[in-house]
Amino acid sequence: MQPQPSQMGYDRAITVFSPDGRLYQVEYAREAVKRGTTAVGIKCREGVVLIVDKRVSSRLLEPSSIEKIFRIDAHIGVASSGLVGDARALVDRARIESQINRVSYDESIDIETLSKRLCDHMQTYTQFGGARPYGTALLIAGISDGKTHLFETDPSGTLLEYKATGIGVGRPAVMKVFEEEYNPENSCKEAIFLGLKALHAATEGKFDVNTVEIGIVSVQSGTFRKMTPEEVAVCVETFEQ
Amino acid sequence: MQPQPSQMGYDRAITVFSPDGRLYQVEYAREAVKRGTTAVGIKCREGVVLIVDKRVSSRLLEPSSIEKIFRIDAHIGVASSGLVGDARALVDRARIESQINRVSYDESIDIETLSKRLCDHMQTYTQFGGARPYGTALLIAGISDGKTHLFETDPSGTLLEYKATGIGVGRPAVMKVFEEEYNPENSCKEAIFLGLKALHAATEGKFDVNTVEIGIVSVQSGTFRKMTPEEVAVCVETFEQ
Amino acid sequence: MQPQPSQMGYDRAITVFSPDGRLYQVEYAREAVKRGTTAVGIKCREGVVLIVDKRVSSRLLEPSSIEKIFRIDAHIGVASSGLVGDARALVDRARIESQINRVSYDESIDIETLSKRLCDHMQTYTQFGGARPYGTALLIAGISDGKTHLFETDPSGTLLEYKATGIGVGRPAVMKVFEEEYNPENSCKEAIFLGLKALHAATEGKFDVNTVEIGIVSVQSGTFRKMTPEEVAVCVETFEQ
Amino acid sequence: MQPQPSQMGYDRAITVFSPDGRLYQVEYAREAVKRGTTAVGIKCREGVVLIVDKRVSSRLLEPSSIEKIFRIDAHIGVASSGLVGDARALVDRARIESQINRVSYDESIDIETLSKRLCDHMQTYTQFGGARPYGTALLIAGISDGKTHLFETDPSGTLLEYKATGIGVGRPAVMKVFEEEYNPENSCKEAIFLGLKALHAATEGKFDVNTVEIGIVSVQSGTFRKMTPEEVAVCVETFEQ
Amino acid sequence: MQPQPSQMGYDRAITVFSPDGRLYQVEYAREAVKRGTTAVGIKCREGVVLIVDKRVSSRLLEPSSIEKIFRIDAHIGVASSGLVGDARALVDRARIESQINRVSYDESIDIETLSKRLCDHMQTYTQFGGARPYGTALLIAGISDGKTHLFETDPSGTLLEYKATGIGVGRPAVMKVFEEEYNPENSCKEAIFLGLKALHAATEGKFDVNTVEIGIVSVQSGTFRKMTPEEVAVCVETFEQ
Amino acid sequence: MQPQPSQMGYDRAITVFSPDGRLYQVEYAREAVKRGTTAVGIKCREGVVLIVDKRVSSRLLEPSSIEKIFRIDAHIGVASSGLVGDARALVDRARIESQINRVSYDESIDIETLSKRLCDHMQTYTQFGGARPYGTALLIAGISDGKTHLFETDPSGTLLEYKATGIGVGRPAVMKVFEEEYNPENSCKEAIFLGLKALHAATEGKFDVNTVEIGIVSVQSGTFRKMTPEEVAVCVETFEQ
Amino acid sequence: MQPQPSQMGYDRAITVFSPDGRLYQVEYAREAVKRGTTAVGIKCREGVVLIVDKRVSSRLLEPSSIEKIFRIDAHIGVASSGLVGDARALVDRARIESQINRVSYDESIDIETLSKRLCDHMQTYTQFGGARPYGTALLIAGISDGKTHLFETDPSGTLLEYKATGIGVGRPAVMKVFEEEYNPENSCKEAIFLGLKALHAATEGKFDVNTVEIGIVSVQSGTFRKMTPEEVAVCVETFEQ
Repeated sequence: MQPQPSQMGYDRAITVFSPDGRLYQVEYAREAVKRGTTAVGIKCREGVVLIVDKRVSSRLLEPSSIEKIFRIDAHIGVASSGLVGDARALVDRARIESQINRVSYDESIDIETLSKRLCDHMQTYTQFGGARPYGTALLIAGISDGKTHLFETDPSGTLLEYKATGIGVGRPAVMKVFEEEYNPENSCKEAIFLGLKALHAATEGKFDVNTVEIGIVSVQSGTFRKMTPEEVAVCVETFEQ
Repeated sequence: MQPQPSQMGYDRAITVFSPDGRLYQVEYAREAVKRGTTAVGIKCREGVVLIVDKRVSSRLLEPSSIEKIFRIDAHIGVASSGLVGDARALVDRARIESQINRVSYDESIDIETLSKRLCDHMQTYTQFGGARPYGTALLIAGISDGKTHLFETDPSGTLLEYKATGIGVGRPAVMKVFEEEYNPENSCKEAIFLGLKALHAATEGKFDVNTVEIGIVSVQSGTFRKMTPEEVAVCVETFEQ
Repeated sequence: MQPQPSQMGYDRAITVFSPDGRLYQVEYAREAVKRGTTAVGIKCREGVVLIVDKRVSSRLLEPSSIEKIFRIDAHIGVASSGLVGDARALVDRARIESQINRVSYDESIDIETLSKRLCDHMQTYTQFGGARPYGTALLIAGISDGKTHLFETDPSGTLLEYKATGIGVGRPAVMKVFEEEYNPENSCKEAIFLGLKALHAATEGKFDVNTVEIGIVSVQSGTFRKMTPEEVAVCVETFEQ
Repeated sequence: MQPQPSQMGYDRAITVFSPDGRLYQVEYAREAVKRGTTAVGIKCREGVVLIVDKRVSSRLLEPSSIEKIFRIDAHIGVASSGLVGDARALVDRARIESQINRVSYDESIDIETLSKRLCDHMQTYTQFGGARPYGTALLIAGISDGKTHLFETDPSGTLLEYKATGIGVGRPAVMKVFEEEYNPENSCKEAIFLGLKALHAATEGKFDVNTVEIGIVSVQSGTFRKMTPEEVAVCVETFEQ
Repeated sequence: MQPQPSQMGYDRAITVFSPDGRLYQVEYAREAVKRGTTAVGIKCREGVVLIVDKRVSSRLLEPSSIEKIFRIDAHIGVASSGLVGDARALVDRARIESQINRVSYDESIDIETLSKRLCDHMQTYTQFGGARPYGTALLIAGISDGKTHLFETDPSGTLLEYKATGIGVGRPAVMKVFEEEYNPENSCKEAIFLGLKALHAATEGKFDVNTVEIGIVSVQSGTFRKMTPEEVAVCVETFEQ
Repeated sequence: MQPQPSQMGYDRAITVFSPDGRLYQVEYAREAVKRGTTAVGIKCREGVVLIVDKRVSSRLLEPSSIEKIFRIDAHIGVASSGLVGDARALVDRARIESQINRVSYDESIDIETLSKRLCDHMQTYTQFGGARPYGTALLIAGISDGKTHLFETDPSGTLLEYKATGIGVGRPAVMKVFEEEYNPENSCKEAIFLGLKALHAATEGKFDVNTVEIGIVSVQSGTFRKMTPEEVAVCVETFEQ
Repeated sequence: MQPQPSQMGYDRAITVFSPDGRLYQVEYAREAVKRGTTAVGIKCREGVVLIVDKRVSSRLLEPSSIEKIFRIDAHIGVASSGLVGDARALVDRARIESQINRVSYDESIDIETLSKRLCDHMQTYTQFGGARPYGTALLIAGISDGKTHLFETDPSGTLLEYKATGIGVGRPAVMKVFEEEYNPENSCKEAIFLGLKALHAATEGKFDVNTVEIGIVSVQSGTFRKMTPEEVAVCVETFEQ
């Protein structure tokens, strides 16, 4: 995205609209997300699946230290793309909101409530000066009252729910696969395979067992958990066949 | 709206008037509204009707997650257009004002009082530095003391009451239909049909049952409610015939 | 008013004088007033009259929602021109000052005291950074100790008392009529007719019964009141004959 | 005063010296004073006289609402020139300082003490950012311990005492008259005539009885008072003969 | 790294994204790290090793005053590269966090917890205005629950764990050596030799016994300690043979 | 002092060094001092002498209102040059520091302590933003423990002690006279004559009895006092012979 | 140091990195030090020696008022170069830190602790906006636990310990002498002679007895003291022979 003469000067501050009513700094923050690693989320009959390609570049790196899927609470998990430090700050905030809810009301936080609060927080960073918007997007997967949800946030604080979606550099390729092949009646296993196929398309096949993270929200147990590297390995190997 | 040389420099801050006494940042915020989804409000004999075209772009999106009509209190509803995060912030504020009124005075807030408070809040964002104006417009529909009202706000904090009006990208088309065909003696059903016709004109017919949201203030019950997707479907189908 | 090279740079902030000792931002705020609807005030033998042309542009608009004349207290009324949201903020401030006076001293506020306080408030917005001046002018009509007053404020915080005056886009035309025909010994009815004649001249005759608002301070009753639409209609119709 | 290339950039902020050690914003504030109405002050054997030409431009204006001479305390009066709102703010401050002194020490404030406090206040507006200097000058006339004083302040916070002086647009003409004709042994009446002569010279004779305000500090009574319009009329008429 | 026209203006503030979603100020802070002295960290079978080349330039300098490896707590040590003052500020913060944990929970802080807290702190300096990002990178070596860790932070607040890594001016040369020769089954002695070889490659052999600092986390003892100059001398001499 | 291209941009803020390590705003503040009236200070056998040429320009001005020499405490006096309002602010500060010392420790403040405190205060205005440096220099004369002192401050907060010195526009001429003729064994009378000779040289003889102020610190009495106009007249007349 | 096009714009604020990771404002502050008077510090067998050339320019100046060597506590002394006011502010801070330590822990502050605290303080002025870095360097000489130290600080907050070093305009000449002739086994007298030789080289022989200040930390007494002018005179005279 090359700067146009017409946007010169309107894109230096988040507190300034451009003549056509756009907030360039928010749009540039979205570019930071578009440069991020690809993450996908898929709702299925049995729950919600989150899959991330971690893009580990060196054999000297400990893959476990690149965390892109985070457990927020027993029933909610998050996948992120974009600036790493920003994502960690939002995840911390989400965890604290969840704990406050548990302490205040003695029950787990509703996933939509949590998602809106995070978005409200992100919106303030697009209206007030002194800071920049968050350069990160989140996929928030969870279950409340037996119903699964898959929300997507962006730097503007917009909140949308998807049946299946992707964020990061591979989003266009991922969405193409989902538009054609998504089936809400899939099992979790089938959803994982669809997600791996989408990531495979997005990364042009350059991902191996160590660079994939998978999180699952299960309708049956009502909880979120991250798959162990061994489980992931089994999935990926089965998929590759 | 292309920037003119004469407005260069006067349009970068909300705390600066242009030589001809205009506040360009407020006008640019209005452009953000003009890029938003179309919403219409229509007063009728039996109450007030709010209708929004949600413009759902992908089959993977959950239409229910795109909320453009919000219940503020038992007797007040709001339709929004423009920046999604800004609208949510204003809706939150409206709900809190309503609850404070209930707790303080043990009665529901007067709709005009509420509308003015929201506009006062918006006005401060056009006079003080450190933040940008809200990039959103609201249609506020409600009933107080048996009398229905349909207010429209804009980013400058101006408050106007209409018999029938529209906000967002389709406003010119909508107003043309209303100027010609509006009848205050319509029933709610007739008002909904007029609203759908206006939206149809504004969207050039590209809306289907899943992308329309309808809210109704009823004189009889004295309350606001959002129609269920099933009710909306019946309306739209009848209309399409 | 086109910017001149010599004012470039001195007109971007209210905390900066130009080399010739002018405050351009205050002058630009006056331009916002000059773009506003026309309001007139006329002192007469029996009291003070305020008349506003509301310029209602669409039949879909509820004329009652365009309020340009406001009751501040039992004995004081205000007509405004310029930015609508700014006027509402000043009116709120005036009402609060009046109520504080009643609560503190158990008597109604002196109209000159109130007017000076509003102007002091406006002056601070021309000296300190972080906000812009108010883009609105007020005509303040009232009665204290049996003596009527008609004050005019402007964005710089200047306060002047007039026998008859006008603000807004039609001011030059209005003042021409008043300079020629004003008579302090008129009755209220004659003053209203003079005011309508001035507005007629200012709007080139484009106003009808629904777009005029009239407020009256009566020496006899010692109070301010807004005329009902019916009373206004009678006046306008009589005038039109 | 046209901006010179060499002052470009050093004259936009009060917290910046120019390379030759000048504070342009303070000098520009002085220009605002030079555009103000002319006020003169004259010490005489019997006291101090303040005279202002109010320049009333329209017969619709109430001359009494243009106040340029203010009573600060029983023994002190002030004449102002420059920005009207700024003058009112300084006068308010002076009155409060006087009252605080009365309440704290049970005696009237010394006129030199009061004048220095006002100047200290004005000086801070020339050293700290976030506000502009005051665009107003004051003539402070009063009596303390039986001794009369006539101080002149300017936007920089400089305080000087004069035997006879003038501020505002007519200062050069006024000072020329005083340099030639001032006599400290004049009576008040003679001083008023000298002041009117100076104003006459400054305004090229364009002032009438309604546009002149006169204040007098009397050695005999030890107090300050403004002359009534009737007294002023007598003076002016006598003078005109 | 020469500035490109396209980044002009987007790289002056940390609160501004560039059109392609980058934070130039954070990238420039990384350049400060790239100009720093070279530090390496290597995990081995027996623990973790940190080695720094201090680049002592003058015989008049006391080598002991150039500290590049710091003990944070009994079980954690840190090596830094980049701005010296910034590193000291981060080390102080790390020590305080560690002590707070000991006082609050009566146990030593988990090394991952500490590393994340430091990164959270650094992230805020990339999002909020009024300060610049930290111009320093850290290698954090330690042991918690019998498991060794080697984290690397950068100015953006990103946290990665490595098996072996380097920071500072010699990083490219160091990583080349490690990619080819790193063996996780090495003893500490072998790891130190590998590190010295890498530093030797990075400094083109220009380091002597007095300019090397070595810190060791031992699995056996569960603690971190800096080697004495004598021990370092023995290592270096053995290595040089 | 004309601005050079190389200083463009580095001289607009006190919080910015120029590439050659200079603080231009402090240097420009010194220019304000160089434009001030000339003041001299001379140590002699019997004490310290301060003499100022007040440059009274009009016969209408009360010379007594131009105060350039101020008594700070019983044993300390100050002569100032530069911005008048700034000098008054510093003198106020000095007086308050002196009184605080008396109240806190029941003894008069040491002159060196006082001078350093004033300089510390001035230094902060050269390091922190939001205000400009003081545009004034002071000569501080006094006696503590029987020892006389003559300090000179400048806008940077530098403090130097002189045997004889001058500030203001005439400094070069004054220093030339002192370098040639100063004798520490002079009596006060001889010192005054030397000072008048220096001022005479600096003003090219344009000063008369009414425009000179003289202050004396006496070793014998241990106090500071300003000479009466009569005493000054005697001195000047004797000198003129 | 002439500004290069590539540093334009990155050198105006301390909160901005240049594209190559440099902080120009800190480097410019170092230029202020390079323009300062020369100070040297030398460790020897018997303690540490500080010597400063005060560069007294006029016979009218009291040399004692130019203080470049300061006693901080019984065991610590400081020599400064660069902005005089900044040095005094740092010296004040050092003295207060020392006193706080005495009051809090009933023992003298460790010299390294004190030096780090001063550097931490200076570092914050290189990271946060609203102020400029300190334009001064310090040589801190002292003794703790029987061990002597000689620290050098610079505007970035870097802390280094030297055996012998110099700051200010003559540093290059001084370091050349020290590199060639420094001997840690010197007596204090020999160290002073070496220092005078270095200053002699730096000032090209233009210093006399009145312009040299000498401070000594003695291992034997464990204290710091400034030599009297008489002692200095003896040293200088002996040296000159």
